Amino acid sequence: MGRWEPDAQERLVLAALDLFSEQGYENTAVAQIAERAGLTKSTFFRHFRDKREVLFGGQEVLASMLEAGIAGAPESAGAVEAVEAALVAVSAGLTEERRAHGPRRREVIAGNVELREREALKMVGFAATMADSLRRRGVPELEAGVAAELGLLAFWRGYDRWLETGGDFAEVARRTFAEVRAATTAVLVARPGTLAG
Amino acid sequence: MGRWEPDAQERLVLAALDLFSEQGYENTAVAQIAERAGLTKSTFFRHFRDKREVLFGGQEVLASMLEAGIAGAPESAGAVEAVEAALVAVSAGLTEERRAHGPRRREVIAGNVELREREALKMVGFAATMADSLRRRGVPELEAGVAAELGLLAFWRGYDRWLETGGDFAEVARRTFAEVRAATTAVLVARPGTLAG
Repeated sequence: MGRWEPDAQERLVLAALDLFSEQGYENTAVAQIAERAGLTKSTFFRHFRDKREVLFGGQEVLASMLEAGIAGAPESAGAVEAVEAALVAVSAGLTEERRAHGPRRREVIAGNVELREREALKMVGFAATMADSLRRRGVPELEAGVAAELGLLAFWRGYDRWLETGGDFAEVARRTFAEVRAATTAVLVARPGTLAG
Repeated sequence: MGRWEPDAQERLVLAALDLFSEQGYENTAVAQIAERAGLTKSTFFRHFRDKREVLFGGQEVLASMLEAGIAGAPESAGAVEAVEAALVAVSAGLTEERRAHGPRRREVIAGNVELREREALKMVGFAATMADSLRRRGVPELEAGVAAELGLLAFWRGYDRWLETGGDFAEVARRTFAEVRAATTAVLVARPGTLAG
């Protein structure tokens, strides 16, 4: 896929974001994106299924990183440690280049309800991927679901923070996940009876 | 809105679900839905913005019930009690009629990626509604987000269970939320260091 155009994908993403910002997502055609990038429409379709995928293509890679992170956590790791391993693993996909696009990408998504819908489904998919991976490690069904939701919250908030601050996503995510766990404890202990389960 | 056709909305929903099941969501036009219901297209558009809204229309009502439940919880209630009040409040919207449509509605949604996307965004909306309502009660920002996610998980799982068992949604939701909290405690205590926050 595009070996002879090593930077084609990146050029297409940049061209698309430029055009989406300039003239709106709805008013931009694939042919325009390809032209702006100095590439052909067929090159576009070698990299992306459709116009929307320019904004979401990388998320499948992130999902498999989350999965691999959980699968690769030490056997002794509990759900929390395994989710933390997932957040650390995903940092390999959160490059400085990706961070540079982040705010513009988010602005385009915020402005279009169909894009927000796809973003929401991808997030549901991230949580489901983490929960399934935890279950395969033997984490009980509901605990896996809870740990995945807490992990997703940390991922999402950590990502926001990382867009602002930059640096190593793994470190930001670890810190955010610790905060999420502390907040969870605070929510539960505010009603001590529930902590006894 | 449709005072002179008191059951128009319900008839449109039933006609739409019949047609979606028979010939597929994609192949069904608004005019067909109206015709099957013995109503006009303009009556359809008095009740629903578009074809998709037949499947999602009631969710805005549910969101305002969640919000009202949290706002109406006793002043002394913590985040957990307020979320529980939201789940109880929403039961007024989960009628036996709605339950009868539930499995077919879900099947139609599962078969179409755009519908799954809209469903996902509605769920994100439910969590945001609950989190915002909790923040207005003075629950700290991140704790509100966590409590809302746990509440959404309970809502979602309780809804599944209620579709199967019927009965009072409030009772099902309370029990499910208690299980979610117990699972959350189990996830956190599996790594005792984190409980200290």
